[in-house]
Amino acid sequence: MGTLQQFIKQTQIIMDEQFNIHFSGLNIPSRLKKAMLYSLEAGGKRIRPLLLLATYQAFDSELERVFSTATALELIHTYSLIHDDLPAMDDDDYRRGKLTNHKAFDEATAILAGDALLTHSFYLIANDNHLTADEKVRIISLLSETSGPKGMVAGQILDIDAENKTIDVNQLEKIHVLKTGELIKFAVKAGAILGGATENQLKDLESFAYHLGLLFQIQDDILDVIGDDKKLGKAAGSDEDLNKSTYPKLLGLEAAMALRNEHADTAKESLRKTKANTKLLEEIVDYFNARDH
Amino acid sequence: MGTLQQFIKQTQIIMDEQFNIHFSGLNIPSRLKKAMLYSLEAGGKRIRPLLLLATYQAFDSELERVFSTATALELIHTYSLIHDDLPAMDDDDYRRGKLTNHKAFDEATAILAGDALLTHSFYLIANDNHLTADEKVRIISLLSETSGPKGMVAGQILDIDAENKTIDVNQLEKIHVLKTGELIKFAVKAGAILGGATENQLKDLESFAYHLGLLFQIQDDILDVIGDDKKLGKAAGSDEDLNKSTYPKLLGLEAAMALRNEHADTAKESLRKTKANTKLLEEIVDYFNARDH
Repeated sequence: MGTLQQFIKQTQIIMDEQFNIHFSGLNIPSRLKKAMLYSLEAGGKRIRPLLLLATYQAFDSELERVFSTATALELIHTYSLIHDDLPAMDDDDYRRGKLTNHKAFDEATAILAGDALLTHSFYLIANDNHLTADEKVRIISLLSETSGPKGMVAGQILDIDAENKTIDVNQLEKIHVLKTGELIKFAVKAGAILGGATENQLKDLESFAYHLGLLFQIQDDILDVIGDDKKLGKAAGSDEDLNKSTYPKLLGLEAAMALRNEHADTAKESLRKTKANTKLLEEIVDYFNARDH
Repeated sequence: MGTLQQFIKQTQIIMDEQFNIHFSGLNIPSRLKKAMLYSLEAGGKRIRPLLLLATYQAFDSELERVFSTATALELIHTYSLIHDDLPAMDDDDYRRGKLTNHKAFDEATAILAGDALLTHSFYLIANDNHLTADEKVRIISLLSETSGPKGMVAGQILDIDAENKTIDVNQLEKIHVLKTGELIKFAVKAGAILGGATENQLKDLESFAYHLGLLFQIQDDILDVIGDDKKLGKAAGSDEDLNKSTYPKLLGLEAAMALRNEHADTAKESLRKTKANTKLLEEIVDYFNARDH
């Protein structure tokens, strides 16, 4: 498969193809379709599909088996960004350097585009020709659990509750484990399940996903302090403006960096325990740890 | 099973029990849970679960096989009401005589409660012990299709587009077929599929659902003109205020009533063709046709 950079590029190409396959023939009101595709195609790094594909290929090479699942995951992630940016939530005008969905369209359209992306993600999995019915049910159960009221949505409500409040680092960790960690867990577990991982390997990979998710979020917080506006596609310091608790704020910048590195080490240790072909996943740990946007 | 009135009462009891079963043990942030249950328990007539159960029992008596599907359907319907009432959408303060979700809580909570209900509906079906994996996949596919961008969400975006515009009766019909008709179609088709209906029976029942959905909506519009505020739980004439197109406005009250009765006749005719035990469904046609709230 080659290096991580090739795999990242390949994942982006696969996702673009998948959006084309699943949306070009979709006969729906044009404004709805435009709004859905606007945010899907705003790009981003496709980190969740990347993780899913990279975990799958640690066990099996028939990558096209997980294309629909990876697409569904990116639809869910995109819906969550659209709703998160709404005036009633984080009230953001820009995302990845582009107008947010409700600014490019309007609030009603953004709410409905999010609802449509969320709902359609389950349609994609249910209608995937590469998976058995048992696999589909297991993946749908996992996706609805990690993205629903026990998972990502719980994280979002706790995140809102924490605004303008003093919280400690344990509460901050809980928010991130739910808000971003659950979908990262889904990416890794779905890839492993469909790739045929054993129960023990699944446990180690869940630990990997847990630490990877936290290091990702800590780095996000660090970049908000030291990052470059242009690379970030949003203003550095915007968390500060919202009076949000962050790791650098609670721990100091150096301690936050040390904690991030600890999570990276533990994530790699969990990978080694699986004895699977996890070279690419190890590179992803380093990539997340060193990213600058 | 007895008369329709008993069946309606029984459906309401079943739904309350199901909400209790699925939510009492659900360990999620309390404000999220309260907001989800607030709108679920605002009651309403449970028309969609009623239709699903009534269609199922035209073919099979083991009703508990469809309890989770009926619950998932009511979760989806409830999420759609919460999002539809938001300030950016219909901006309603009251629903069924109670404060709407964003008025009882706040906008962010209402958006997330809707997202959570939508997502959790798929979790319920995926984790239903009464259905086979094949049945679950078929039901999830149908639910995501009828409630997603090709179905209900398409209807909502067309409905918003039509505000303050002159549309004709064909456009009005298209909006209603999508916005309310698709979930009614799901109720009927899911009941029939899980009950073991043949392909021909499914076709006739889809026609039944189509006409039943339209008669339901026309009667809704009629009640908005001639209804009693107290029984409706909202102000009669509120569609007029929003400058929405309605059947009485486009056709006149008498012609709207005649059209409603025509749909009732065609719905019953479709039922008879199935040669199944559809007595209860016929009573539902009369009940919808004569309802006063």
